[in-house]
Amino acid sequence: MVYLTRVEHFNAAHKLQNPNWTDEKNVEVFGKCANPNWHGHNYELHVTVKGIPNPETGFVFNAKELGTLIKEIIVEQVDHRNLNVDVAFMKGKLTSAENLIVGIWNELKPHVEKRGAQLHKMKLNETPNIYVVYYG
Amino acid sequence: MVYLTRVEHFNAAHKLQNPNWTDEKNVEVFGKCANPNWHGHNYELHVTVKGIPNPETGFVFNAKELGTLIKEIIVEQVDHRNLNVDVAFMKGKLTSAENLIVGIWNELKPHVEKRGAQLHKMKLNETPNIYVVYYG
Amino acid sequence: MVYLTRVEHFNAAHKLQNPNWTDEKNVEVFGKCANPNWHGHNYELHVTVKGIPNPETGFVFNAKELGTLIKEIIVEQVDHRNLNVDVAFMKGKLTSAENLIVGIWNELKPHVEKRGAQLHKMKLNETPNIYVVYYG
Amino acid sequence: MVYLTRVEHFNAAHKLQNPNWTDEKNVEVFGKCANPNWHGHNYELHVTVKGIPNPETGFVFNAKELGTLIKEIIVEQVDHRNLNVDVAFMKGKLTSAENLIVGIWNELKPHVEKRGAQLHKMKLNETPNIYVVYYG
Amino acid sequence: MVYLTRVEHFNAAHKLQNPNWTDEKNVEVFGKCANPNWHGHNYELHVTVKGIPNPETGFVFNAKELGTLIKEIIVEQVDHRNLNVDVAFMKGKLTSAENLIVGIWNELKPHVEKRGAQLHKMKLNETPNIYVVYYG
Amino acid sequence: MVYLTRVEHFNAAHKLQNPNWTDEKNVEVFGKCANPNWHGHNYELHVTVKGIPNPETGFVFNAKELGTLIKEIIVEQVDHRNLNVDVAFMKGKLTSAENLIVGIWNELKPHVEKRGAQLHKMKLNETPNIYVVYYG
Repeated sequence: MVYLTRVEHFNAAHKLQNPNWTDEKNVEVFGKCANPNWHGHNYELHVTVKGIPNPETGFVFNAKELGTLIKEIIVEQVDHRNLNVDVAFMKGKLTSAENLIVGIWNELKPHVEKRGAQLHKMKLNETPNIYVVYYG
Repeated sequence: MVYLTRVEHFNAAHKLQNPNWTDEKNVEVFGKCANPNWHGHNYELHVTVKGIPNPETGFVFNAKELGTLIKEIIVEQVDHRNLNVDVAFMKGKLTSAENLIVGIWNELKPHVEKRGAQLHKMKLNETPNIYVVYYG
Repeated sequence: MVYLTRVEHFNAAHKLQNPNWTDEKNVEVFGKCANPNWHGHNYELHVTVKGIPNPETGFVFNAKELGTLIKEIIVEQVDHRNLNVDVAFMKGKLTSAENLIVGIWNELKPHVEKRGAQLHKMKLNETPNIYVVYYG
Repeated sequence: MVYLTRVEHFNAAHKLQNPNWTDEKNVEVFGKCANPNWHGHNYELHVTVKGIPNPETGFVFNAKELGTLIKEIIVEQVDHRNLNVDVAFMKGKLTSAENLIVGIWNELKPHVEKRGAQLHKMKLNETPNIYVVYYG
Repeated sequence: MVYLTRVEHFNAAHKLQNPNWTDEKNVEVFGKCANPNWHGHNYELHVTVKGIPNPETGFVFNAKELGTLIKEIIVEQVDHRNLNVDVAFMKGKLTSAENLIVGIWNELKPHVEKRGAQLHKMKLNETPNIYVVYYG
Repeated sequence: MVYLTRVEHFNAAHKLQNPNWTDEKNVEVFGKCANPNWHGHNYELHVTVKGIPNPETGFVFNAKELGTLIKEIIVEQVDHRNLNVDVAFMKGKLTSAENLIVGIWNELKPHVEKRGAQLHKMKLNETPNIYVVYYG
């Protein structure tokens, strides 16, 4: 079993705001991340598929196709967008890195599987010093 | 003459939108950067001062103090903010990286000089692949 | 289950020296790392907690609080210190990256658990080319 | 159990070309990677061993020795080489990152074990945005 | 005056070989870089233009267009190519980083100027530890 | 004129302490950097030479030789050393990054010039967020 990872990037705005809370409670819990006028990040997304290399190609999955797939299914929806406002799969959810990686996983998984590959792991950097990992 | 650089970071939302233009013209020129609901970046700011090292300290400027100064004067204003809406020194300006670095320079310069140092250069990364440099 | 990682940094001096060995034996095994006058590193520490995102916050753990905790419990003790001389939890231990990560784990674990989170993994870079990982 | 990783680098040329296919089929599957005149990469190899730190050294394995071993057994064979033409352990194999990491694993494993260590994991970056991982 | 830089990447094979020298002399001067079967690199190219930001856009030059231009004029010619064999503007030249950056400069300059911008500087990383800079 | 840079690394201990000052004054000015038991860094040194590429080699200077020279003349003296205690060219000097880069420059310059090259610039990273530059 070999694990292949492809990294893609997107830049997005968001804020952390629980609509059931007062502004004070939001600031108390989320601090500067609750700024009502938004802030943003350069997100870095690592998508890992696993499998036995195909003897005809040497590939677990074609890394270029994996990049194209991530760009079409995910980057197209989130890049230069507002995660709270513009992104269908995040509607009604808090846009924490944790919820975002679960949303991306659910969005991408059927497309990866349709191509005969197994999605193994995702890693999402919100900043160089904060990242989340998800295995489904 | 030795040049000392301190790097600080901030995360902000913005959009590129000329208010004198139609939406179509804005999208034509700025592409996805004109998304009305904003997007954002992890900005990386390099501030360079120059001077002859002080024989008593070995310092051109105390790097820790330079970091504190950048955080107080700049990061406090722009971190987890919307550059178009929340930042006084960008009011009425397009929030391109070019205009942002000039704004930051003008904001920081008097504070650096008040402490007897010479501001030499600034570098601002909007993404790992796009950055601007300014010498005043 | 989502895994959240926070990265913090510290700069420290150390040497590798087994007090039961001669100087010759120490140099034979540890090479330049046995220099009696110390050397040092910019350490990079990744702390990973795991859990199910809280529906009210979207967080496994508040990343800002995790950073504060690491800084208070670990960085305060090791940053700009001598790992062999100044650090209580390394007393009587060889300050290899392996022993250091185990020491940091034992120091931080009760504080993470007291806040209701599960410590999952730590990674410690001694240099960009040497790092250790520990799961407890 | 502590996991110790050492990173080494090599620069090599290769191409992706299935000798049983026409040129057209090779280009269709491998795209620009099938260029008959080769292309190349700066590869970054992470080698992870695991064990209980030796109480006399604090080491799972001496990181300097691990580096020397990787350089002697692997880098010597692949650095500034053509992976398709010059490298004995890749003869007759497609030089995908997947096949390369399996080849490196098989080459290095007996040498690591002969020194009493357990090879746990390898990671190989072909580019900053494409990497493979293998656990044997 | 503001300086805007755009970074692009390409992967290429090459070798260093003076055709007027014996193989022995080539190995003596170029070492492993003279391997007749080629080696390769992930090159990183920084292209810097300068100017006064346009008041209507805030741009010295549109960074997205600059990226497109570099990709069309340079990356298209060198990515996944053999610099000695496949690249018209390097024909008859030693493919050192120094000669390559001068070749790229001469190739790109008229296209940048045709768009009304001033090419100021280029930086080319052959590896993370070796890079060249050129100002024309 | 092309500028060629070679990057080398070393790990060292130091402290900032003016021997003419009281301990209190040292802590007041240097903060944690004055810890009497030392701290340390992974230093990253960029050495830039300039010249017209030699038509026979395509080189301003052989990058491998430049690396060897930096390792022999500088890294050998400072790697895994105490900058205040072990390094002849820093004796009697405060080991700030500013003084260190000037010391390294003076040490390396005659060796570079003896080989017919022109030393143009040095950059020294003390941490990823603090660096100094010197042009002699």
